[in-house]
Amino acid sequence: MELDILKELLLNVKNGNVDVESALVSLKNLPYEELGFAKIDNHRALRTGYPEVIYCEGKKTDHIVEIFMRLTQTNKSVLATRATYEVFEAVKKIIPQAKYNQEARTIVYENDLPKQKIGKISVVSAGTADIPIAEEACVTADIMGNNVSKFYDVGVAGIHRLFSKLGELEKSNVIIVVAGMEGALASVVGGLVSVPVIAVPTSVGYGANFGGLSALLTMLNSCASGIGVVNIDNGFGAGCLASKINKLGRCD
Amino acid sequence: MELDILKELLLNVKNGNVDVESALVSLKNLPYEELGFAKIDNHRALRTGYPEVIYCEGKKTDHIVEIFMRLTQTNKSVLATRATYEVFEAVKKIIPQAKYNQEARTIVYENDLPKQKIGKISVVSAGTADIPIAEEACVTADIMGNNVSKFYDVGVAGIHRLFSKLGELEKSNVIIVVAGMEGALASVVGGLVSVPVIAVPTSVGYGANFGGLSALLTMLNSCASGIGVVNIDNGFGAGCLASKINKLGRCD
Amino acid sequence: MELDILKELLLNVKNGNVDVESALVSLKNLPYEELGFAKIDNHRALRTGYPEVIYCEGKKTDHIVEIFMRLTQTNKSVLATRATYEVFEAVKKIIPQAKYNQEARTIVYENDLPKQKIGKISVVSAGTADIPIAEEACVTADIMGNNVSKFYDVGVAGIHRLFSKLGELEKSNVIIVVAGMEGALASVVGGLVSVPVIAVPTSVGYGANFGGLSALLTMLNSCASGIGVVNIDNGFGAGCLASKINKLGRCD
Amino acid sequence: MELDILKELLLNVKNGNVDVESALVSLKNLPYEELGFAKIDNHRALRTGYPEVIYCEGKKTDHIVEIFMRLTQTNKSVLATRATYEVFEAVKKIIPQAKYNQEARTIVYENDLPKQKIGKISVVSAGTADIPIAEEACVTADIMGNNVSKFYDVGVAGIHRLFSKLGELEKSNVIIVVAGMEGALASVVGGLVSVPVIAVPTSVGYGANFGGLSALLTMLNSCASGIGVVNIDNGFGAGCLASKINKLGRCD
Amino acid sequence: MELDILKELLLNVKNGNVDVESALVSLKNLPYEELGFAKIDNHRALRTGYPEVIYCEGKKTDHIVEIFMRLTQTNKSVLATRATYEVFEAVKKIIPQAKYNQEARTIVYENDLPKQKIGKISVVSAGTADIPIAEEACVTADIMGNNVSKFYDVGVAGIHRLFSKLGELEKSNVIIVVAGMEGALASVVGGLVSVPVIAVPTSVGYGANFGGLSALLTMLNSCASGIGVVNIDNGFGAGCLASKINKLGRCD
Amino acid sequence: MELDILKELLLNVKNGNVDVESALVSLKNLPYEELGFAKIDNHRALRTGYPEVIYCEGKKTDHIVEIFMRLTQTNKSVLATRATYEVFEAVKKIIPQAKYNQEARTIVYENDLPKQKIGKISVVSAGTADIPIAEEACVTADIMGNNVSKFYDVGVAGIHRLFSKLGELEKSNVIIVVAGMEGALASVVGGLVSVPVIAVPTSVGYGANFGGLSALLTMLNSCASGIGVVNIDNGFGAGCLASKINKLGRCD
Amino acid sequence: MELDILKELLLNVKNGNVDVESALVSLKNLPYEELGFAKIDNHRALRTGYPEVIYCEGKKTDHIVEIFMRLTQTNKSVLATRATYEVFEAVKKIIPQAKYNQEARTIVYENDLPKQKIGKISVVSAGTADIPIAEEACVTADIMGNNVSKFYDVGVAGIHRLFSKLGELEKSNVIIVVAGMEGALASVVGGLVSVPVIAVPTSVGYGANFGGLSALLTMLNSCASGIGVVNIDNGFGAGCLASKINKLGRCD
Amino acid sequence: MELDILKELLLNVKNGNVDVESALVSLKNLPYEELGFAKIDNHRALRTGYPEVIYCEGKKTDHIVEIFMRLTQTNKSVLATRATYEVFEAVKKIIPQAKYNQEARTIVYENDLPKQKIGKISVVSAGTADIPIAEEACVTADIMGNNVSKFYDVGVAGIHRLFSKLGELEKSNVIIVVAGMEGALASVVGGLVSVPVIAVPTSVGYGANFGGLSALLTMLNSCASGIGVVNIDNGFGAGCLASKINKLGRCD
Repeated sequence: MELDILKELLLNVKNGNVDVESALVSLKNLPYEELGFAKIDNHRALRTGYPEVIYCEGKKTDHIVEIFMRLTQTNKSVLATRATYEVFEAVKKIIPQAKYNQEARTIVYENDLPKQKIGKISVVSAGTADIPIAEEACVTADIMGNNVSKFYDVGVAGIHRLFSKLGELEKSNVIIVVAGMEGALASVVGGLVSVPVIAVPTSVGYGANFGGLSALLTMLNSCASGIGVVNIDNGFGAGCLASKINKLGRCD
Repeated sequence: MELDILKELLLNVKNGNVDVESALVSLKNLPYEELGFAKIDNHRALRTGYPEVIYCEGKKTDHIVEIFMRLTQTNKSVLATRATYEVFEAVKKIIPQAKYNQEARTIVYENDLPKQKIGKISVVSAGTADIPIAEEACVTADIMGNNVSKFYDVGVAGIHRLFSKLGELEKSNVIIVVAGMEGALASVVGGLVSVPVIAVPTSVGYGANFGGLSALLTMLNSCASGIGVVNIDNGFGAGCLASKINKLGRCD
Repeated sequence: MELDILKELLLNVKNGNVDVESALVSLKNLPYEELGFAKIDNHRALRTGYPEVIYCEGKKTDHIVEIFMRLTQTNKSVLATRATYEVFEAVKKIIPQAKYNQEARTIVYENDLPKQKIGKISVVSAGTADIPIAEEACVTADIMGNNVSKFYDVGVAGIHRLFSKLGELEKSNVIIVVAGMEGALASVVGGLVSVPVIAVPTSVGYGANFGGLSALLTMLNSCASGIGVVNIDNGFGAGCLASKINKLGRCD
Repeated sequence: MELDILKELLLNVKNGNVDVESALVSLKNLPYEELGFAKIDNHRALRTGYPEVIYCEGKKTDHIVEIFMRLTQTNKSVLATRATYEVFEAVKKIIPQAKYNQEARTIVYENDLPKQKIGKISVVSAGTADIPIAEEACVTADIMGNNVSKFYDVGVAGIHRLFSKLGELEKSNVIIVVAGMEGALASVVGGLVSVPVIAVPTSVGYGANFGGLSALLTMLNSCASGIGVVNIDNGFGAGCLASKINKLGRCD
Repeated sequence: MELDILKELLLNVKNGNVDVESALVSLKNLPYEELGFAKIDNHRALRTGYPEVIYCEGKKTDHIVEIFMRLTQTNKSVLATRATYEVFEAVKKIIPQAKYNQEARTIVYENDLPKQKIGKISVVSAGTADIPIAEEACVTADIMGNNVSKFYDVGVAGIHRLFSKLGELEKSNVIIVVAGMEGALASVVGGLVSVPVIAVPTSVGYGANFGGLSALLTMLNSCASGIGVVNIDNGFGAGCLASKINKLGRCD
Repeated sequence: MELDILKELLLNVKNGNVDVESALVSLKNLPYEELGFAKIDNHRALRTGYPEVIYCEGKKTDHIVEIFMRLTQTNKSVLATRATYEVFEAVKKIIPQAKYNQEARTIVYENDLPKQKIGKISVVSAGTADIPIAEEACVTADIMGNNVSKFYDVGVAGIHRLFSKLGELEKSNVIIVVAGMEGALASVVGGLVSVPVIAVPTSVGYGANFGGLSALLTMLNSCASGIGVVNIDNGFGAGCLASKINKLGRCD
Repeated sequence: MELDILKELLLNVKNGNVDVESALVSLKNLPYEELGFAKIDNHRALRTGYPEVIYCEGKKTDHIVEIFMRLTQTNKSVLATRATYEVFEAVKKIIPQAKYNQEARTIVYENDLPKQKIGKISVVSAGTADIPIAEEACVTADIMGNNVSKFYDVGVAGIHRLFSKLGELEKSNVIIVVAGMEGALASVVGGLVSVPVIAVPTSVGYGANFGGLSALLTMLNSCASGIGVVNIDNGFGAGCLASKINKLGRCD
Repeated sequence: MELDILKELLLNVKNGNVDVESALVSLKNLPYEELGFAKIDNHRALRTGYPEVIYCEGKKTDHIVEIFMRLTQTNKSVLATRATYEVFEAVKKIIPQAKYNQEARTIVYENDLPKQKIGKISVVSAGTADIPIAEEACVTADIMGNNVSKFYDVGVAGIHRLFSKLGELEKSNVIIVVAGMEGALASVVGGLVSVPVIAVPTSVGYGANFGGLSALLTMLNSCASGIGVVNIDNGFGAGCLASKINKLGRCD
């Protein structure tokens, strides 16, 4: 589309419809305004299946509804994270197809039949309190078109639960590990599998947990190599990154 | 191999050479000792091309030489990180094929002809002071069998240098971004490309940089999604993770 | 006024109405009490057009109303920041001209026709959640007599939106950049323009954002020179500093 | 210059020397590579008199010499900060005009007669130990073409020394306040003058000073409005920002 | 039990009911899934008298009730910590034997007559505000079968209260010291007794207490040797550790 | 009293009413229980006029009422700090003489006519938001029998207000300085007076104030000597320490 | 002994050799000076076999030698920690029986034949760099009369090495886990064994390890119960605490 | 002196030698420049016997010598803190009366016979490693004319040593408590005495001591009232504050 605009301008210069000086002015301003990055942006959206996302925390309900509605008009799928049930009810009045996931606190809108999911992302979580963040990662990865497998409640306090799943985990393209408290699960998983691991520290815990700092530092300092860390409680970010990795496929 | 041991035991039970009680004792202890995890471990080494690695900081020279020598006897490639030139000279006396990279402070040993590199990992760094960490990532990715492209000195203070490289960057399977000071480059790259990004904060800077904390927090809080962060100055870890991602290939 | 007091005293000494010892006592105490710094203070108020300001957070509504009323009696303009709508309603009952800005959470009172605005201050913000702080800066700069231009929602995750505005930004005397999360926008703007930049970190974000610490450190460590940082969420302070800079004019 | 390239391309399209498709390819890639940001960059350099700068800490002497030499070939002035005397001696062998400032630890090269200095920047420092940072700010402001006045050793422990200088300070376009330990001087100056203040916390102090954190927090939380803070020990950054503000002139 | 499964398999191999290849598959997967660690786990539960525990904070009431009910079906005793009275009322409707401890905020279920308590654990607390955490430790140690003695309100501001109890304290197998604010009590007790000390910092305090950090650091840096520290406010963890130590008995 | 017990025991030994072995047992246990430290404690209470104090934050109303009532039975004066008006109303029902100070949030009970106040403590505060803490210090110092003078709202943003009070301040035996935000007032006062200064950082402020950390560090790092710092918001502690110092009198 | 002094005094009172008033004076002062706590102290030393210890870091060699010599005159065993080889050589000249442990950096002096070791303490360490701290714990536990078993280099990056040792570990009375970097080993061990665990975080690591903070927080937040934590790098403290626990024996 | 200048000016006005307008100009500028605060400063110096002080850390030897020499010309006593022996030797060459205290690392010059010391300051320290800071406090207090008593090595690990000294401590006007590691000694002393306590945290310790932060927080959060805290390792500041308090005398 944008290339068409450029082509037309050049044809007009060639044909004498537009003089060189005027074309010069257009070209000098164009790339930064309507053309350049937007194109890259669009390409990216098409290729990654990345939906538009609304982070609801701190936003007013009517603002969220308005943004959600506007996004559904130009996007095939919309994802709202950190959404309360009240927000969902308000959205649902306007967008009846919107679906709520209570654990993940997400609202999902897809105007098409769900497309074929590809590859395999495994989401591993340590304790039951980590499940909301794990679910946010799952919903995010799912709406972006990835197959997702869940392995919950396999924390290091009962590590034998993890070992029985190793074979399955190893078959993933990428594993998301969600853990609060001391966050040791990421190191243990990272030391046992050969696939890339995305670690999500959660704010689950108390005292010297300092709002997730403990798990965050654990994951950053992991003695197991091949672990990338996202922000505390950032299930959405982990889902995005996992999606990008999973879509590279597995060629061996 | 390990399966052979198990099979033999079962055949002996079948044939009556070993009685059930003795087999029971063997089986109860076996998996945790010689069989189970070691197998997984070997599989992993074979599949990922992951070499044995020595982290030299804080180790004595003669210890490093000894470990290095021992590893060369059982491994096709050995990597030593954070190695001074003095350490290299000592290693070289024993292992003449060892090669030193002064920027990356690495010693590399490969007993074979270098194998065919695959895929594409891009390593982007912000300032000249970040280059040692960027080089550590490059050397690590290279010895693990990946094609590596370097884009150095493209920090946000002169962001136009980055923009001219976007096309090339987008062709990578994964991009490593190395930046100290405020570490903003990871966000800028992450906002412009569609491939997975691994962010490496460095301790480059002073004052409120607090030994790399500033860049680390920047990268964890990035408003661009799809960024996984490793420890401060951990070029090696970034190289490992990038290698695992790159080997998934690109199937689109 | 204060000079008159001094002059009268000296004339009385000259005329013999006041003896030298009594004058000595008066002079020894005078400067620190009624004369010296108050004068400087008044001069400053006149020259800078700096209004009286009430920081409402943590103050009781009736206290705010009382202070507001008292200030309107001796000042041409009064600004209240961090004011809830409830506070505004209480103020409005007493001061009907008071105006509320819901985004900025400010109450403004001006007893004159607004005076001619001068120069140009640009206020750039990264995300929609940063707008309240950006608006606080705008209202502050406006009531102090400056022309203000707004460039909202141009964060680094979609940096092309920023680039199309560079020409306009460069025409400002000073630019205020408001950003939360990782705060990278200040570095990007600072690297692209030649005018002074005031960076305002916001507490927008979660997890390793640590209440704005992340954006604060990013801005302090910026590799782009010429950036002055104010406290987290301090839109008011940024507006004040920008006003002082803008009033220096542009002489090139 | 860059506009010439564009113009030539358009003329060639007009004349039929270049067909539309080829021009399209050129235009699509051009702006990000040779044209766009470099132009902005050059404009900025010309307008601000901003020299090229080398931050020496952590760089090897021969690297610094090489960079310094290269910069003198294309720049009228070069500034090296955090330079030891040993570095200076090495530079001087190649660039005999280079001058060293022992207090500021800077090397300055100017290939022209010094140009006319303009406006007025005041640099105020608290204790004698803060002088190196204050001097770095002075040297930076000076080489960028600003008049600089120094007011050293006027810390709050003997605040009367500051008061006798208030009249002079008030005549500046901008004041840089350099202070370590508790950094209270910035608040005191900011409360007494009407001009913009740039605060530079220093790492001078011990114990709960935590490497300058104490002074940094003091300055960020100042109850005096109109203070912009730079990184700990960042005399250079303060000089840059002050230069940009001072060059706006004073129009009242 | 699990050994029976293994034995049966081996007998079937011996008898020819199961062929070697099938047995091989069973054995390869078995240890990690149903056999290995669960056995260890069960052994541990039996030996330590360790009950199942529910951490209630952040969990919904109906979830807690459901988990509690399920646990009572397979466990002799269940402990819920950080439980509000509302949670207790909901649990009590289903499990009438459940008992609430208002100070400790615990719910305890024991389906047997309480077993014989052994040894001696002393719980010492500094101020009245530390009592909830001290009580959590007491309840935990009690349900695990230990004799518990309480010494409350013996903080260092009135240290004579502690001295009169030293003889009794010395007779314990292990002492738990619970203290907030500056947490000095752990050092004082640790310097006076010869038995192991478990220190529990609490979040009691304000200001530079930083949510318990002050007491935590005090206890970690204690100049008295033989002190093990648990997380801030972790009365439960202290009770567990004390129980394990107390059960070693006293053999001198 | 306690000495009487001892004397009686010795007389009984002398008279043969108590045998030596029994006396031995009594003596071995006595000093730590009823005699030793309690005596010191009582002496201290008599000499310092130190009342019993209840810290109300986090305590339940009925507990506070009970403690308050018990203390009035054995003490001439009782002080409750951090008390809400609701707590006061409950206390007043039982102890009608109790008096509430709304600013200081204190409840005071004195069963005697107020005794003669001695010496002079000055309490200086920076902003209006610091007044509650300043008042807590005043009430504490007052009930302990000290003359108290208040100098409020003399922060460094309008430092001339402070200078007019210097003569009066210098006449104090000790000065309490209460300041939030950047806390610079303590340094300024400490540099101008010769009497001991107690600095109270408050949690007033936002952003990089980090709950009072900013003011705390400022005060600890003050370049003015002779400043002792208490915990953030600890008006009570400052009042106690000032009382102890003031009672030393002034002998020069 | 001290009881003899008391008894003699009472007999003298009985016999009229000492009058009641004089005895009163003696008794009032005695307990705090020569009698009370010293006795407790001696008892403790005898019972625990706790040697005198010298922490060498920061002490001058000749001071250490002098203290060491003095202690050997009144103690059966002396332990010096954090001792360099130079310190050892100086000590050895005076105390030829002193023995150096190069890994642990300890000097040990025992003037008797080593006594019979009792019980079992296991020391588990994660990486080779943690060995010095692990060895310090071993030497400490050994000199205090405990049997010590070592399990080194069993970190979570190769967790199968740990599993083969679980049976042996479970037979200990107490396990010391020494780990740096992310310190996850303590959680893994704590989740697998039923005996008390003492966790020693080490400063091994870099970047976001922040001098051992990462491992410290991990261990404090462990989701496995029954873990007591000591200071970073405090192998000595762990050895002391383990010794106290081990000496309680095992009575099941 | 300064009053003479004023008087002369007024007499000149009276006599007509100076006209009113000229006198006005003089008076307007005078107070801030030569008169006002300098006078206060001199008064203070005379009254407190406060010597001039040089903080040597980070200063070059020849600079220290020069400052020292200059100060001896106008002061009766000079104190240099944090001075190495090398610095002392250089000073001694010029000022032969200078005396060095090796423990305190101070250089003292007194040109008079030492004046009569007054009152009583007690300095209590916890461990031998805290002695340098304790000695700095002692030397400071001594040169300011106070009687000083030392109570070293009475830390809480052997608290009985402290108890035997309580009577003596209670006779002080003020007590300085110097302690590193966990700093609990300040709380213990503060809970046992009725006189003001100045607490000096030291950086003695390691690991989670974080350069003295641990002891600092302990002292700020002390549950014993009446404790003022100075900066980490600030023996000099404690000596100053104690001197000011001690000079108030004791009037009860």
